[in-house]
Amino acid sequence: MTKEEVLQSLAVQTESKLIMVVIDGIGGLPIRGKTELEAAKTPNLNRFTPKAACGLIDPISYGITPGSGPSHLALFGYDPFRYEIGRGVMEALGIDIPLTRDDLAARGNFATIDEKGIVVDRRAGRISTEKNREICKFLGNEIKEVEGARVSIYPGKEHRFVLVFRGEGLRDDLTDADPQKDGYKAKGTEGLSEEARKTAGVINLYLKKVNEVLKPFHPANTILLRGFSKIPDIPTMSERFKLRPAAIATYPMYRGLARLVGMEILKTGESLQEEVETLKKNFEQFDFFYIHFKKPDMAGEDGNFKMKVKAIEEIDRILPSIFRLNPDVLILTGDHSTPTPLKSHSWHPNPILLFSKYTRPDGIRRFTERHCQKGQLGRFPAMEIIPLMLANGLKLKKFGA
Amino acid sequence: MTKEEVLQSLAVQTESKLIMVVIDGIGGLPIRGKTELEAAKTPNLNRFTPKAACGLIDPISYGITPGSGPSHLALFGYDPFRYEIGRGVMEALGIDIPLTRDDLAARGNFATIDEKGIVVDRRAGRISTEKNREICKFLGNEIKEVEGARVSIYPGKEHRFVLVFRGEGLRDDLTDADPQKDGYKAKGTEGLSEEARKTAGVINLYLKKVNEVLKPFHPANTILLRGFSKIPDIPTMSERFKLRPAAIATYPMYRGLARLVGMEILKTGESLQEEVETLKKNFEQFDFFYIHFKKPDMAGEDGNFKMKVKAIEEIDRILPSIFRLNPDVLILTGDHSTPTPLKSHSWHPNPILLFSKYTRPDGIRRFTERHCQKGQLGRFPAMEIIPLMLANGLKLKKFGA
Repeated sequence: MTKEEVLQSLAVQTESKLIMVVIDGIGGLPIRGKTELEAAKTPNLNRFTPKAACGLIDPISYGITPGSGPSHLALFGYDPFRYEIGRGVMEALGIDIPLTRDDLAARGNFATIDEKGIVVDRRAGRISTEKNREICKFLGNEIKEVEGARVSIYPGKEHRFVLVFRGEGLRDDLTDADPQKDGYKAKGTEGLSEEARKTAGVINLYLKKVNEVLKPFHPANTILLRGFSKIPDIPTMSERFKLRPAAIATYPMYRGLARLVGMEILKTGESLQEEVETLKKNFEQFDFFYIHFKKPDMAGEDGNFKMKVKAIEEIDRILPSIFRLNPDVLILTGDHSTPTPLKSHSWHPNPILLFSKYTRPDGIRRFTERHCQKGQLGRFPAMEIIPLMLANGLKLKKFGA
Repeated sequence: MTKEEVLQSLAVQTESKLIMVVIDGIGGLPIRGKTELEAAKTPNLNRFTPKAACGLIDPISYGITPGSGPSHLALFGYDPFRYEIGRGVMEALGIDIPLTRDDLAARGNFATIDEKGIVVDRRAGRISTEKNREICKFLGNEIKEVEGARVSIYPGKEHRFVLVFRGEGLRDDLTDADPQKDGYKAKGTEGLSEEARKTAGVINLYLKKVNEVLKPFHPANTILLRGFSKIPDIPTMSERFKLRPAAIATYPMYRGLARLVGMEILKTGESLQEEVETLKKNFEQFDFFYIHFKKPDMAGEDGNFKMKVKAIEEIDRILPSIFRLNPDVLILTGDHSTPTPLKSHSWHPNPILLFSKYTRPDGIRRFTERHCQKGQLGRFPAMEIIPLMLANGLKLKKFGA
């Protein structure tokens, strides 16, 4: 059996409660000697950390900087190399479009073509978001269906939108309908398999109709499509781990990722307090909770060291109310690092804390990158967290006799 | 090439001597702040440990609690997910039945059925071990063979026994001949492949005969069979690693596991002293020794912290006589943790010490879970121990040019 099959065969449902706290972009790099975690004043973390088993997790693997999709799949116990989430799907999740297995999603741009069909501006002069909404509304009414496939168009910012085709048997092994550079001829999509050629036909017919009706909207007189993708055929956390999982997140993308693996999405507010309230209110109904705190990542992306430190301190203040729920297993970690000097996600490992009555406490003083690396959990891939949580919740039977 | 193939191609036979000391269930959890290893007085270990390379091993993988079968396969250098040892085989090994490749083993229960064929007691009222022996002897004489397959029955405790069919082409992809619960109709086994259906026919014919002859033995008037299995098709340690391996263990199950990978089983007594005597006496004849100390696991399973501490102290006293043999490589570790608070095997990693003149001593003071985690070996899967021992014994050539 594969390791995945073995884990599935060992998982049992029990009453124990597991909480996974994900602090987005928590890991950092030192500026004037200290990382954001090292610079932050975290009295609560300082009190809890010595009782935990500590370590460092690699979101994916040495040197790999993950997007939110792969890093969350790994946190949820899925092999991020095996299950891919395409760009179109990620974009759809990011604006809260619930996708079904019949949906084919793509990222779209409004663009400008000249009379010879050459793309002269891939962003249609960066039309306003308002204009975008107007055109999307028009297109949505004008073309509702192509050869049996329903078409929905969702405006994004400026020239960007998400397009979703819904129909049986649509395929996503398709090339981009996008020349990628100005000065090249607009082109349709091509199917990369026999079955995909039918899907390509549907999309190209749609593109033809779009070009006809968009003429009056110059400079937004055509569209480019890329990242065609369907949701991966992924078993739920309930199937794989016998969990009843729930997700608490303020941003649609994280709710969407949680929905992909079968989590129940809990309605919550915008603040940390509201997220924790939601956790409390639903604590009896589920046995696994994923709770997502977004702010440190945003500060990291902005390159704002002080703001990231403040975001960490704000989270520190809310932690006692999570600990008071007295879960059987509590994990505190991040999905990836977002060091302020890089202003982006990075490959650096994140510190992790594991609380459970079945651990040998490390006695480590602080929840930082450099303190946690001395812990018993060592440095390990994020996708091992779920097996570890299940074990500590006594939710895994013995393997073999 | 796979890693396994590479290792096999690099292994060379040399005169260097390797000893693997396996302390069953050594790892633990703290009670009043200390694990069993931390609480034990171990003057000899305290003297040897600073000279070792230290680390923590995961028996199988993060969170997975192994049975003795998979954990020993991993210690012997085999991928425990690839080579599975079925329940019937484990049970047979546990009572020292030497299995051949033609043997199909199953765990059996004597049980009670009513006149409609409903199982009313899966344990036949837990008949005495004495009664069990009597019925097994009778059955063994009564039915020696079914359609060319020889049948042997070996009594266990109370209502339990092991059944072995010996014949060419027997298959083990079979369902259990056991309804698993009282109140259900007794059922035969079913073959899960075309070839297995023939084996199922043999077994079901045996069951029919058993039901006829067992009538006078009510409440033990039928048998249930489960965990049909054959020994895995596993290359020997000599084939894979060019070793001449020998095993010293007081319990049949560990001797059986060692036999599966081609070790020579050395006759020994019941005490630690006798095991070490056996090691000394045979030290010239082999180049790899697996020596198994059982007691800490038993104390752990009993939840007896003090007894586990004593068992560890007893092992500490015997260690100098192993060191005096001056092996080229000496490993000291466990097959899995058996923490007294859990009274069972667990997923927690075990400390490991590696002695060899080709290591950089860590200078770590004690052989405990929390001391060893600071060592240079880091935290790694048990199946990497054999390559590490081979390397330190200069038994692995360079990979590539």
